[in-house]
Amino acid sequence: MKTCVVAFSGGLDTSFLVPFVREKYGFKKVVTCTVNTGGFSDEELKNIASRSKEVGADEHVAFNETDNFYKDILKFLIFGNVTRDGYPLCVGSERLIQGRTASLFAKKIGAALVHGSTGAGNDQYRFDLVARVLGVDCLAPIREFEVSRDFSTGYLKDRGINVPQKNTSYSYNVGLWGVSIGGKETLVSDGIIPDFAWYSADRINPKEEVKLKIRFEQGEPVVCDSVSGPVQVIKYLSETGFKQGVGRGYHVGTSIPGKKGRLAYEAPAAEIIYAAHRTLEKHVLTQTQIHLKKIISDELGRLIHEAYFFDPVVKDIQAYLKSSQERVSGEVTVTLSPYRISSVQVQSEFDLLTVGGATYGEGATTYSGSDAAGASRLHGFEQELFWSRGVKQAL
Amino acid sequence: MKTCVVAFSGGLDTSFLVPFVREKYGFKKVVTCTVNTGGFSDEELKNIASRSKEVGADEHVAFNETDNFYKDILKFLIFGNVTRDGYPLCVGSERLIQGRTASLFAKKIGAALVHGSTGAGNDQYRFDLVARVLGVDCLAPIREFEVSRDFSTGYLKDRGINVPQKNTSYSYNVGLWGVSIGGKETLVSDGIIPDFAWYSADRINPKEEVKLKIRFEQGEPVVCDSVSGPVQVIKYLSETGFKQGVGRGYHVGTSIPGKKGRLAYEAPAAEIIYAAHRTLEKHVLTQTQIHLKKIISDELGRLIHEAYFFDPVVKDIQAYLKSSQERVSGEVTVTLSPYRISSVQVQSEFDLLTVGGATYGEGATTYSGSDAAGASRLHGFEQELFWSRGVKQAL
Amino acid sequence: MKTCVVAFSGGLDTSFLVPFVREKYGFKKVVTCTVNTGGFSDEELKNIASRSKEVGADEHVAFNETDNFYKDILKFLIFGNVTRDGYPLCVGSERLIQGRTASLFAKKIGAALVHGSTGAGNDQYRFDLVARVLGVDCLAPIREFEVSRDFSTGYLKDRGINVPQKNTSYSYNVGLWGVSIGGKETLVSDGIIPDFAWYSADRINPKEEVKLKIRFEQGEPVVCDSVSGPVQVIKYLSETGFKQGVGRGYHVGTSIPGKKGRLAYEAPAAEIIYAAHRTLEKHVLTQTQIHLKKIISDELGRLIHEAYFFDPVVKDIQAYLKSSQERVSGEVTVTLSPYRISSVQVQSEFDLLTVGGATYGEGATTYSGSDAAGASRLHGFEQELFWSRGVKQAL
Amino acid sequence: MKTCVVAFSGGLDTSFLVPFVREKYGFKKVVTCTVNTGGFSDEELKNIASRSKEVGADEHVAFNETDNFYKDILKFLIFGNVTRDGYPLCVGSERLIQGRTASLFAKKIGAALVHGSTGAGNDQYRFDLVARVLGVDCLAPIREFEVSRDFSTGYLKDRGINVPQKNTSYSYNVGLWGVSIGGKETLVSDGIIPDFAWYSADRINPKEEVKLKIRFEQGEPVVCDSVSGPVQVIKYLSETGFKQGVGRGYHVGTSIPGKKGRLAYEAPAAEIIYAAHRTLEKHVLTQTQIHLKKIISDELGRLIHEAYFFDPVVKDIQAYLKSSQERVSGEVTVTLSPYRISSVQVQSEFDLLTVGGATYGEGATTYSGSDAAGASRLHGFEQELFWSRGVKQAL
Repeated sequence: MKTCVVAFSGGLDTSFLVPFVREKYGFKKVVTCTVNTGGFSDEELKNIASRSKEVGADEHVAFNETDNFYKDILKFLIFGNVTRDGYPLCVGSERLIQGRTASLFAKKIGAALVHGSTGAGNDQYRFDLVARVLGVDCLAPIREFEVSRDFSTGYLKDRGINVPQKNTSYSYNVGLWGVSIGGKETLVSDGIIPDFAWYSADRINPKEEVKLKIRFEQGEPVVCDSVSGPVQVIKYLSETGFKQGVGRGYHVGTSIPGKKGRLAYEAPAAEIIYAAHRTLEKHVLTQTQIHLKKIISDELGRLIHEAYFFDPVVKDIQAYLKSSQERVSGEVTVTLSPYRISSVQVQSEFDLLTVGGATYGEGATTYSGSDAAGASRLHGFEQELFWSRGVKQAL
Repeated sequence: MKTCVVAFSGGLDTSFLVPFVREKYGFKKVVTCTVNTGGFSDEELKNIASRSKEVGADEHVAFNETDNFYKDILKFLIFGNVTRDGYPLCVGSERLIQGRTASLFAKKIGAALVHGSTGAGNDQYRFDLVARVLGVDCLAPIREFEVSRDFSTGYLKDRGINVPQKNTSYSYNVGLWGVSIGGKETLVSDGIIPDFAWYSADRINPKEEVKLKIRFEQGEPVVCDSVSGPVQVIKYLSETGFKQGVGRGYHVGTSIPGKKGRLAYEAPAAEIIYAAHRTLEKHVLTQTQIHLKKIISDELGRLIHEAYFFDPVVKDIQAYLKSSQERVSGEVTVTLSPYRISSVQVQSEFDLLTVGGATYGEGATTYSGSDAAGASRLHGFEQELFWSRGVKQAL
Repeated sequence: MKTCVVAFSGGLDTSFLVPFVREKYGFKKVVTCTVNTGGFSDEELKNIASRSKEVGADEHVAFNETDNFYKDILKFLIFGNVTRDGYPLCVGSERLIQGRTASLFAKKIGAALVHGSTGAGNDQYRFDLVARVLGVDCLAPIREFEVSRDFSTGYLKDRGINVPQKNTSYSYNVGLWGVSIGGKETLVSDGIIPDFAWYSADRINPKEEVKLKIRFEQGEPVVCDSVSGPVQVIKYLSETGFKQGVGRGYHVGTSIPGKKGRLAYEAPAAEIIYAAHRTLEKHVLTQTQIHLKKIISDELGRLIHEAYFFDPVVKDIQAYLKSSQERVSGEVTVTLSPYRISSVQVQSEFDLLTVGGATYGEGATTYSGSDAAGASRLHGFEQELFWSRGVKQAL
Repeated sequence: MKTCVVAFSGGLDTSFLVPFVREKYGFKKVVTCTVNTGGFSDEELKNIASRSKEVGADEHVAFNETDNFYKDILKFLIFGNVTRDGYPLCVGSERLIQGRTASLFAKKIGAALVHGSTGAGNDQYRFDLVARVLGVDCLAPIREFEVSRDFSTGYLKDRGINVPQKNTSYSYNVGLWGVSIGGKETLVSDGIIPDFAWYSADRINPKEEVKLKIRFEQGEPVVCDSVSGPVQVIKYLSETGFKQGVGRGYHVGTSIPGKKGRLAYEAPAAEIIYAAHRTLEKHVLTQTQIHLKKIISDELGRLIHEAYFFDPVVKDIQAYLKSSQERVSGEVTVTLSPYRISSVQVQSEFDLLTVGGATYGEGATTYSGSDAAGASRLHGFEQELFWSRGVKQAL
């Protein structure tokens, strides 16, 4: 194979890869490939393109996969209010799309895929798997040669390539669905990052109250205030949320290899949309729907995290979630107070709270006291039968 | 049956029951029974006792079941971080204990049980079921005769019994595990109760930062700051949380009869303990434990809500949850900011984050890059095989 | 309301209803309605029609809902291999369709629905619920007046209406999906019905080996031997299975009211199709698909049994199951020996067993020993980390 | 490390390992270790011991872990009626115990563990993982050097070591819980092994009817006919079942690496005990218990299969299952006909079928028709409310 495609962000690791794979594996042509899933600004994309030249790539390509990221993953995360034990899966979900796009591009030009993952984390699984599924050769030199940051820094310097000084000791993965933050405090269990280290630190300016009106159509946040289209709504909610300091948190979880990791994150759009969507669902879905959907959604979170996105079960889950959203339409008002969501109000034509029948806590209207007595008489009747056998030790 | 036991809170409904059941059913002796599960102050208990006399009961008994409430229910809610779609089950859980104690007392003195439930809500199921399980006759006159509040007010007045004016248009169910609040705003889907209507309105005084140190032993919050014993810790966290405005929320859910209901609630102790406990668990449990425990805990929430507490499956779930807490020990620092929990820090001898092996995001130490490559090579191998059959339409 | 529709089978209970509802409730017009979901022969349908006249109905209508029964319920039971703890839900599933059709007819002609359910079983829930969902008034006189068989026999005799002698002490519910049998032996836990009491007793004649070739397309049994179309295939498999004595069993389960019930059943088509379909799925679905599908299918069984068929969650589950069947196509050979299925053989273009890669138990071909070692090195790594903390008491 | 322990069965692979590891890795002392989990007869154990000498081991040790196999694994499989999609996990479960005992022995004498797994199957994971958990060095030379059967045969011949001719082209893994059979027919999807290839072929002699009485105490099969103790009962049921041809089947499933594998198996004891235990449970457990237990048991099957036996979640599941068995006591009569179980009859003091209350299908006795009507009125009430909103397209 003479050509390789390096999944490229312009950082130290992927900068190192460009000269390294040429020398080490003898590739004739090294193409850098950046897949924007909504986390890069235009300026950042321009910088990445010139960085590609700087490190000696033969060619640079960039793909904007933001809409597909929403359509293939985020939409279903919203349908299911999916988190990984509270964490909205900001990073894992976009890596799958990035891996897929880079692999498809490599396949198209008959190249191998090169990615900068180490052997410690989750990303290696996400890139490797989609490449294998697509039949694309895949290399992870940093894992293969157990390359340290010192080594790659030296390697670049030796070749006269500039290594930008990090101006902070915190690392940020900025994506459409949230920002993940690592620092020395996240390597321990009781560390709290300082205020200035939050991604939103330079724009935060909380007001006492910010009211947002989000319109959902069949589970999708289609309009917010004057902004239209789910991707635009997500961006708008992120900006607004960053200002209010909403969506900050810490997550500890088991990586695919089996080691716990900890990170801080800011995901205001995810937090706001989930709060709005979940409340709307509590008004329009039946209890049975809510209950089973939770089990299925939790499983989707596990699958996305663990790179099982290409297992056909994901498609089955998506069909389930899509069906469940048939009536999840309405307008939800979310009030942001400093650093928190203070209330969620719902209006929906499918609202089951306001439908006829007994008003909760008030006298019944559509069924009689005698009906209620009969229903209560038989509720849990099996428990009564059960305890008529044996001793009642549990009581 | 000549004697009846009225489950008694001193409010309009249960006050009405005392003369009513004597006249309607001809009971010779009416005993009022109040079961405190931690929601009544000493003064309230005294008032209830004198109210019992005032409405003409022959006798009044009071039971303090706070410790049993913790031991039989709350402890397991904590083990499972159990909520009903976010709502910490403040009311339903205590009703089960109250129903059980009142029924056991009625059984002991050979009396029938009378409770004030209407036909619209959940409480009727909770009282009726435990009475049936224990073989105690059970009456719900307000449901049976579809008694309105106007009727019961008139009934009491006609008999010269004082009906205290409610000094607020909000109703409060105050319990150890939280306060539930109903008002005209909770009858609709987009109503927000006014600030003064929150239970904590007269004591709120948030500080910029309040730090709490909670010691967990095998899942139980045994010490907080200078306070010892789970029940005392819960009370201390409630007080502290009320001052900070923590734990406020709204819940919409399906009642047992099938109608949606909405309420506001304040459950600071539940919110703080769950946040601390859940974070501690993320550090000490394996991913497999966390995943399966969630399904089981969600089921426990459903069972408690729906009065299935006497189904033997609850005991099975409790055995599971108890086992899962073996290592859930450590000290958790929770920081309260105004109206929110701003951070949770963990220290535990069983912490899996700080155990050897690859530090997440850093180079692996206990396994090699080649091991990682092999693991990644086979991760999701079935997906690769799957897509080698058929077209790759999902990609 | 002047007209009523009696859900009519021609048996004692529904015969009784015709004169009884006219006299008791004063209906001017009594229409009998029989919904065939595949369990009635043409002759039986003719007999039912004349029986309707005999008992004095003003009109008789019959609907053939066999195809809808398959399309709306059986198809999804097959997709999910759904049983109620082994029992293929023969009765409950057809009652839902019968109740739906009779209710829709009653609604159309502005009539009330009358059904013959007692207060003890499941059928009352199935008829009542669909009628309520459709806004049709619904009466269950046998439950309401606690009518005994003696009473209804006498009632008919008094009015000169013939009451056919039962020529057996066993009751049979014959349906497309199987036959349920009740008798004195099924009222106890250790009773076994005599050979002659099996529904198939008069046609059984097992051969040493009968080979059936079933073609599945996306989960549906579309062809078997020379028979085409799922409903025809089911009928053909029933006949063939009855001759072989396949599909016999006993079931004990909790009825909706909460009491255990026991029955004998013969469901050869269900047993054969499930065996074939489940084996085919084991070849073409991924492990993740198989695992999650089981949880969802079990829930569908519970919902069908408990008359929750009109909960929208059923539609969500159906979407899931439909998606899961995308590749469940192929030819399955089932061999019937006397009273059992002796083997199942699969041929499918989507078979994952025969796809490239390591042959199970043989040397790997598409991955190396070193890959396998790496995979094994990291498999369950979290368990290794877990046990490096604390004592190893579990070992 | 100077000593190694070879997990030893006396077959080609493990015979090869003895000289090979001495030469290849330079071990000074090679100890063979055989762990009997109930699958080896005394004669086989004697042959294995002399085979160890023949291939040049310095020492041979044998452990009888049959009781621990039952106590730590099989007992819980019975409690949960656990299968892997029908297959009773005969092989995987015993490998975990064998790996654990061999690893503990290696640890005790300061040796490395050597096992004969290839890189293709499941066993490598089971041995490697427990060794790592216990901190024992572990080698799998056949995987490491991708050793073929031809190579190992030649290797032994070159050293003058006899290689026994296989007298059949089928391989058998004989264990306490069943026999797994591999042959050329199991490598394809539509192959059926010939009659003579079944393990029981030389002892089969089915009688028209064999009646077995099994006594369960809290879920354990403690007595059968005149045989006492669960392990003895299992052996007795195996023998009896082999004669009847009961418990034969085929399984297709995904191996841990991700490839489907197929095998034939004979597990009469598992089939008989599961049938008896499951039926007993249907009589004594509540529906809620049965439903949730199935999800948990299915998960246990997955964990055992995938070598997650040392994950603490297994201990949590065991606590659940143990609790669930509190009333699973009684006498079950199982009738074996040729090649099948023809009936299961239950007697238990905890039987819920025979407890008071409405007899299924008969008139209610402990509740009235009016109670039943009320219960039915409110059953699924939420569905009624749901369909009063929106169009009724689902109907």
